[in-house]
Amino acid sequence: MKLFHKMLMTGILGNLTLPMYAAQWEVLPDTPPIPANNSQSEAKIKLGQTLFFDPRLSSTGTVSCNSCHNVMAGGDDNRPNSVGVEGKTGGRSAPTVWNSAFLSVQFWDGRAPTLEEQARGPVTNPIEMGMSDWDAVVKRLKSIPGYRALFKAAFGPDNPITADNAVKAIAAYERTLITPNSPYDRYVKGDKKALTEQQVRGRNTFAEIGCPACHSGPNFSGPQLTMGSGFYMTFPLVPGSKYETKYKLMEDIGRYQVTGNEAHKHMWRIPTLRNIALTAPYFHNGAVPSLDDAVRVMAKTQLNKDLDNAQVQDIVAFLKALTGEFPKQTMPRLPGTPGRSVIP
Amino acid sequence: MKLFHKMLMTGILGNLTLPMYAAQWEVLPDTPPIPANNSQSEAKIKLGQTLFFDPRLSSTGTVSCNSCHNVMAGGDDNRPNSVGVEGKTGGRSAPTVWNSAFLSVQFWDGRAPTLEEQARGPVTNPIEMGMSDWDAVVKRLKSIPGYRALFKAAFGPDNPITADNAVKAIAAYERTLITPNSPYDRYVKGDKKALTEQQVRGRNTFAEIGCPACHSGPNFSGPQLTMGSGFYMTFPLVPGSKYETKYKLMEDIGRYQVTGNEAHKHMWRIPTLRNIALTAPYFHNGAVPSLDDAVRVMAKTQLNKDLDNAQVQDIVAFLKALTGEFPKQTMPRLPGTPGRSVIP
Repeated sequence: MKLFHKMLMTGILGNLTLPMYAAQWEVLPDTPPIPANNSQSEAKIKLGQTLFFDPRLSSTGTVSCNSCHNVMAGGDDNRPNSVGVEGKTGGRSAPTVWNSAFLSVQFWDGRAPTLEEQARGPVTNPIEMGMSDWDAVVKRLKSIPGYRALFKAAFGPDNPITADNAVKAIAAYERTLITPNSPYDRYVKGDKKALTEQQVRGRNTFAEIGCPACHSGPNFSGPQLTMGSGFYMTFPLVPGSKYETKYKLMEDIGRYQVTGNEAHKHMWRIPTLRNIALTAPYFHNGAVPSLDDAVRVMAKTQLNKDLDNAQVQDIVAFLKALTGEFPKQTMPRLPGTPGRSVIP
Repeated sequence: MKLFHKMLMTGILGNLTLPMYAAQWEVLPDTPPIPANNSQSEAKIKLGQTLFFDPRLSSTGTVSCNSCHNVMAGGDDNRPNSVGVEGKTGGRSAPTVWNSAFLSVQFWDGRAPTLEEQARGPVTNPIEMGMSDWDAVVKRLKSIPGYRALFKAAFGPDNPITADNAVKAIAAYERTLITPNSPYDRYVKGDKKALTEQQVRGRNTFAEIGCPACHSGPNFSGPQLTMGSGFYMTFPLVPGSKYETKYKLMEDIGRYQVTGNEAHKHMWRIPTLRNIALTAPYFHNGAVPSLDDAVRVMAKTQLNKDLDNAQVQDIVAFLKALTGEFPKQTMPRLPGTPGRSVIP
């Protein structure tokens, strides 16, 4: 983390311009990084998908992973903040689960090094899925007969229903949530008709003004780093813009909450730009309603640039070309508990 | 409605036993009744499924039809009552959407004559999906570009996005939610190994004590009547049982709220027994947690019978044989609104 961050900070703090990288345009790989201790398998993915869609992982039986990370849509909930059990809400906006496997850390503040650790969080967060602890989750899963077979198929017969295995399965499923073949990817692969003239112009502007300093790599979320590394930037970086108050950008101190390091105040993990057109409203607090304004905010707060309307529209057109193909999925069957409910 | 109801009432009030019908065991048809003004089509079903799963049909963007009628499970939410927008709850339990196409009226109190009219209700119910009115729903749907093509394919090019067409599409999708080939159905068709000895015994007890007086027909929800007819029974019918207070059975006056007719106090539509093992907790208020106790309650309050444990277990075993095969479904893609959100 530090290497990348310092490099950027030096460039910016020196003269308020970012170092110009020669933009490298990369297509999305078919498969993301897979951790050595959690190889993919059909059985694990099936279990993970079932858990992902099962609202019984929440105290009230009403909130599943998919409630806030809707894979039938852009992988989020199109809300400024999400609604957990009993109508509770928090201050941050749900990031997309699509292509999250390409991020080297998870959550807006990077507090989870892997998808496995990310999946562990919301289930027992009191304002999200509200389970008291993972023991209670495991107890509930063990009381659902059909999960025995699913966990056994994924993890073998020896005490398969555990919190570790549950989050491994969810992460394995999430590693299948990849959206290839966006117009951008097809263009990079050689189909020069895949982007409109405006989109090509937008891509050039995107590169010229310095966006790829952070939004680089195949996932537009920075270079592909070792899992757990993290690629962060301060936001807002250029102080004093009108957006700070308009969009309450200073209220959440970001990664500082995790590390207690002063240098990490208002520092955030670089989010992906893939499918960004589908995940309004924008930023960690979901305060910016439109992609147009999100582009203006970024240009001003990160690059100290005031874009004209044509530039904004061009970049937005390019960003829309990052919407990929969503793989068809069969709905899971949630195993039943014949004759009773596990929801209190 | 009246004919059936009076016939039963006469039998019951005369001597507290129901008329004994020769039980007719019928398999679930492959297709349900289809109203003349809403024929099925692939395009309509696809649109209906998309709407059914779209949480943007709720004010907060968090509650879809599927939230409370989860087709990945038993078609309900396994809760005593459902949770709508902003954590709001009501007093009745969500009935299953599976095989609801075989019911001649919808809702616990039968206040909707068709699935179309049923679908109209929850979207604008303040404690369910919370939209202000259908004009607001239609306005929102019109603002989602992808819905234009879906509605046009289903209903033609002439002003296709209307409330009437939305509920028609949802109903068309729901008419595909049929669970054939339960062990019971296979048994009736001739596979004598499809039921266990206990299940056969349970079926005989079920018939002998009089359950099929109400739970008759292929859907175990009464005879197949013309859409809108309704098949109702007073519950509890036999007054004074301990269950009245234990499960608060007298608090909701049922169909009387719809008709204002004194004779309809505590009268309810006969619910299906198909997949009943998957839809705990039970009854209109979801107050009865287990199927065992639901059977005891029914025997006592409707038939004035105290079953012994063996009888209860036999009937429960039979009821579990009414769990059918759930057709595989592909997840819909919810059309996006590039660059913005339609959720306030």
